[in-house]
Amino acid sequence: MTTAAPATALAYPADKLVEFATQLLFAAGLGERKANAVARILVDGDLMGHDTHGLALLAPYLAAIEAKTMQVDGEPEVVADAPAAVTWDGRRLPGPWLVLKAMDLAAERAQKFGTGTVVIRRSHHIACLAAYLKRATDRGLLMILACSDPASASVAPFGGLDPVFTPNPVAAGIPTSDMPVLIDISTSATTNGLTKRLHGEGGKLPAAWVIDSNGNATDDPSVLFSKPAGTILPLGGLDSGHKGYGLTLLVEALTGGLAGHGRADDNEGWGATVFLQMIDPRAFAGLDAFTRQTSAVTQQCRESRPSKPGTTVRTPGERGLERATYQLETGVKLHPSIAPMLEPWAAKLGVPIPAPLVN
Amino acid sequence: MTTAAPATALAYPADKLVEFATQLLFAAGLGERKANAVARILVDGDLMGHDTHGLALLAPYLAAIEAKTMQVDGEPEVVADAPAAVTWDGRRLPGPWLVLKAMDLAAERAQKFGTGTVVIRRSHHIACLAAYLKRATDRGLLMILACSDPASASVAPFGGLDPVFTPNPVAAGIPTSDMPVLIDISTSATTNGLTKRLHGEGGKLPAAWVIDSNGNATDDPSVLFSKPAGTILPLGGLDSGHKGYGLTLLVEALTGGLAGHGRADDNEGWGATVFLQMIDPRAFAGLDAFTRQTSAVTQQCRESRPSKPGTTVRTPGERGLERATYQLETGVKLHPSIAPMLEPWAAKLGVPIPAPLVN
Repeated sequence: MTTAAPATALAYPADKLVEFATQLLFAAGLGERKANAVARILVDGDLMGHDTHGLALLAPYLAAIEAKTMQVDGEPEVVADAPAAVTWDGRRLPGPWLVLKAMDLAAERAQKFGTGTVVIRRSHHIACLAAYLKRATDRGLLMILACSDPASASVAPFGGLDPVFTPNPVAAGIPTSDMPVLIDISTSATTNGLTKRLHGEGGKLPAAWVIDSNGNATDDPSVLFSKPAGTILPLGGLDSGHKGYGLTLLVEALTGGLAGHGRADDNEGWGATVFLQMIDPRAFAGLDAFTRQTSAVTQQCRESRPSKPGTTVRTPGERGLERATYQLETGVKLHPSIAPMLEPWAAKLGVPIPAPLVN
Repeated sequence: MTTAAPATALAYPADKLVEFATQLLFAAGLGERKANAVARILVDGDLMGHDTHGLALLAPYLAAIEAKTMQVDGEPEVVADAPAAVTWDGRRLPGPWLVLKAMDLAAERAQKFGTGTVVIRRSHHIACLAAYLKRATDRGLLMILACSDPASASVAPFGGLDPVFTPNPVAAGIPTSDMPVLIDISTSATTNGLTKRLHGEGGKLPAAWVIDSNGNATDDPSVLFSKPAGTILPLGGLDSGHKGYGLTLLVEALTGGLAGHGRADDNEGWGATVFLQMIDPRAFAGLDAFTRQTSAVTQQCRESRPSKPGTTVRTPGERGLERATYQLETGVKLHPSIAPMLEPWAAKLGVPIPAPLVN
């Protein structure tokens, strides 16, 4: 074990990382099934290349367990159970475990009723939304997942200066006859994770996705960290931000609204309010009829002439799925910031860090 | 009756416009209930100020009835009926009548099962999506409405030159304790209607929302009408268009995919594939808990300091609702292009045009 940050990203076997993360979470107090669910979702995030939302979250999760802001014991409380719609109070239990459990329930209801919706208030953070989707599309289900966090606000309403929203992501998994479409986008112009990382590195955003405290659009993320602070624009920016604003409000309604918990209540700290819907194409025109259409559309996209010579038109999730396949074979490259965050926890909890692969 | 286009927009009493449109559609062959449903939705579009998607559509609808590309007789065919999910073949019946009927069914199922979804293939055009929403929010229901038209393509996938999609709008109505939030956005950077109108007027778009046939972004809508033609960018434009592209693909899956009819099939001409979902907050944490959150969030938005002095932060739909209230009292101002389109139909079908209000 080294205490200096490695200069480059080291690669580790995925299964060893899952084992390591499971052991750390277990040693911190999570039961084995909960620990393993969280570990699998975090490593799946890294496998797909979402390196701010994979094992980068493990140290903060371990700290939340220690601080008892993440609960370890028991089950979610059922707030309401209509046949096709279930509402849980997540009791601040680990988000990935809650979401995987909710996916099973939503899938079961979708098979009976056509669609199944589970809304969770007071979940802890749910990590990388894209990491869940293939589990649904592999079962021939269309899945929609959205979340917000009422404890935080960095995105202003369109035309305003004061932050009201989190970046309120929406993810969707769409089965086709071959590679599924996996969508995971924020309804804001950019995210807290990217702006924070670029600010730390002294970098600029790819476009004017933020405004300073006077409402001037800029690509400089540091305006979010100055006093008075600027805000992140809604998706669409200055010329079309009313669209991102509308989508953000829809996510708030589907999460905080349906859950009956959110920005009207006291701040309970880092967490998530979750909307999850499974749609079973078998209950509509049939799974074959569904994938026939989705495959035709994705094929038409891939066959489009690229706007830049030498590139190809891809479908959402394609790159992440390819990266996951590759990294399952060759090892998961962890962002250089991750191992140094986990080393103190490994030492404290007595869990050995897996050996990196030597390439 | 005058045959010259009026120089300015004339105003008409809303109820007289509904009566006039109903009579025209009835004289063209639609039954009275169908005719009235279509007329009400079209006039509601104009009342809210959506003047490309109100009575501007009546002449094309009358032409479609005459050409028998819009059917007038009978009911939609039930393709599938799972408890919370119903699929119809709309048999090219009038879209507004089908959607209003589907809303009643979806609301009934939502009251029983928590959510109710109706998907319609082979609907005729459904006009202004925003015009439907208040009927749901008035009943305390959250409604999501999306559509696509497989007969048309003007939007390219992100990074591509060849059009695959329609602007694939998504609309949502969200109840609050006072003014509802009514969202109606295309998942593309702009619409066919706006680009066509500005091209005709020789105008420019507010931003670079289209690309020419070489992939260069521009605010000039004429690139869509030249040979070879350019395309409309996805929402997010060149720097964030992967987000609009993802949302567009989701709309395709919810419409063409679930309906089992779309871009994998032969082109049947102007129409719509419709996804409609009603969500009953009473089945989740309760309607009061829902509106408590949505009202808190919209209030926080309205209280945000505006980014431009002298403006205020509004919520989606606010302007349209205010305009509808105002125009119900003072008369509906029709775009100057509309009356000249309807005059030949009024003469042909023997229906008198209502007298404009004299202000």
